[in-house]
Amino acid sequence: MKFNIAIIGTGNVAWHLSSALENAGHVITEIYGRDLEKAEKIASRLYGTEAQDHLDFTESQANLYVMAVSDQAIGELAEAIILPEESMLLHTSGNMALDILSYSSADYTGILYPLQSFTKGREIGFEEVPFLLETMESKALRILKKLCESLSSPYYVVPSKERRAIHVAAVFASNFTNHLIGISESIIKRQGLEFDMLKPLIIEQVNKTLQLGAKAAQTGPAKREDFDTLENHHDFLHYNAQLAEIYRLISQDIIDSNQL
Amino acid sequence: MKFNIAIIGTGNVAWHLSSALENAGHVITEIYGRDLEKAEKIASRLYGTEAQDHLDFTESQANLYVMAVSDQAIGELAEAIILPEESMLLHTSGNMALDILSYSSADYTGILYPLQSFTKGREIGFEEVPFLLETMESKALRILKKLCESLSSPYYVVPSKERRAIHVAAVFASNFTNHLIGISESIIKRQGLEFDMLKPLIIEQVNKTLQLGAKAAQTGPAKREDFDTLENHHDFLHYNAQLAEIYRLISQDIIDSNQL
Repeated sequence: MKFNIAIIGTGNVAWHLSSALENAGHVITEIYGRDLEKAEKIASRLYGTEAQDHLDFTESQANLYVMAVSDQAIGELAEAIILPEESMLLHTSGNMALDILSYSSADYTGILYPLQSFTKGREIGFEEVPFLLETMESKALRILKKLCESLSSPYYVVPSKERRAIHVAAVFASNFTNHLIGISESIIKRQGLEFDMLKPLIIEQVNKTLQLGAKAAQTGPAKREDFDTLENHHDFLHYNAQLAEIYRLISQDIIDSNQL
Repeated sequence: MKFNIAIIGTGNVAWHLSSALENAGHVITEIYGRDLEKAEKIASRLYGTEAQDHLDFTESQANLYVMAVSDQAIGELAEAIILPEESMLLHTSGNMALDILSYSSADYTGILYPLQSFTKGREIGFEEVPFLLETMESKALRILKKLCESLSSPYYVVPSKERRAIHVAAVFASNFTNHLIGISESIIKRQGLEFDMLKPLIIEQVNKTLQLGAKAAQTGPAKREDFDTLENHHDFLHYNAQLAEIYRLISQDIIDSNQL
């Protein structure tokens, strides 16, 4: 099943999703951007796609409208957008509930949230982009599933409450691990050493974590309850009280997990 | 340059290092284990290696003695081991200083610390095992470097103080990231959902972090200073005060980093 799709937004998700949808055989009819130049930049990479900076889609051939914009902009755009009949409006946010689309003129609404981190310039295969889906209508759900299947993307149908849990989990697994690696880098560089020395360990650790599970893959002084080393490390971090407290708190949580 | 090497210990490091050293063309003359059966298990995988459960090496052909034992055991074993003349004794710990070997009868002492996480049954290429080296004698340093070169392993000569910093950094980058992924898994499973959905994100994030650096790769609500989402997530974690506090503290540290 091939769709005519309009993309609302010009950020990283819009950039990656529009190419992937076109490669999957769909037609990207329009790209909307408040900044027309940005919309034109994306449209120029696609086949026969129009760029536009107004929200009137009454003349559009699209039946699917995918909003890939900031959380703050979704509600306002959903109200302002003028859609043809029998159209379906989607947002791609992990945070926003489905009912933020309820003031739109769309006949169907849904959520198509890619559980992945997009960066302009980094290619990513959509078979590595799981989608979380939500909608109230069974016809709309069929369309969302077809869309994911056309991208070879895994998908999970989850209500908003579970989507929130997944988003919290993603913050721990992605945003926070990134920050901890950043802390690690700052400690190494403070000594004038090369961070490269830690990269093989980081790669092996994450492979092991994903293969064996975090419980089996846990090592280190907190796991061993080696309190001498824990105290020694905590002292080492005296130059930054917040870092020392992060060290103490995560170590305590590892020690507590040993009892489970 | 080929060495005759005796391995003291039967854990994961002993297991991986003995095979790698033999593959690099060295001869593993003996494996020492307090538990002879364990030593025999490792020796049986090698060519002409003896297993022994006593510390008298006066008849050994080895000139290098590599201790791959727990931190607590190093000092005692170093004192007890009986070595032939012109022998060099190494330990492989990230935590222990060089002088813990000073009561040994070895002519040379040094540290050969593999900055990697070993697991029995997981193969690892030693070109992915950076070694941190330390010794007081220039002849011994040449031997340590030759040893690393024979394994195609990168190496860094670092004094004990810097080795401590690297160990703290490794705890953040490896032990703590593993635990945070474990927290993430617990949040997902608490909802009865499949953790597999998060794996592509974790893989892409760590690749991005290592390629772009953590600063450039940081995303998420704390980076965006999206206080509504931060509060929402913090509320979500009400069922575990320690998790909520970890969420708050790391988010605060990300926010503080935005100013740098």
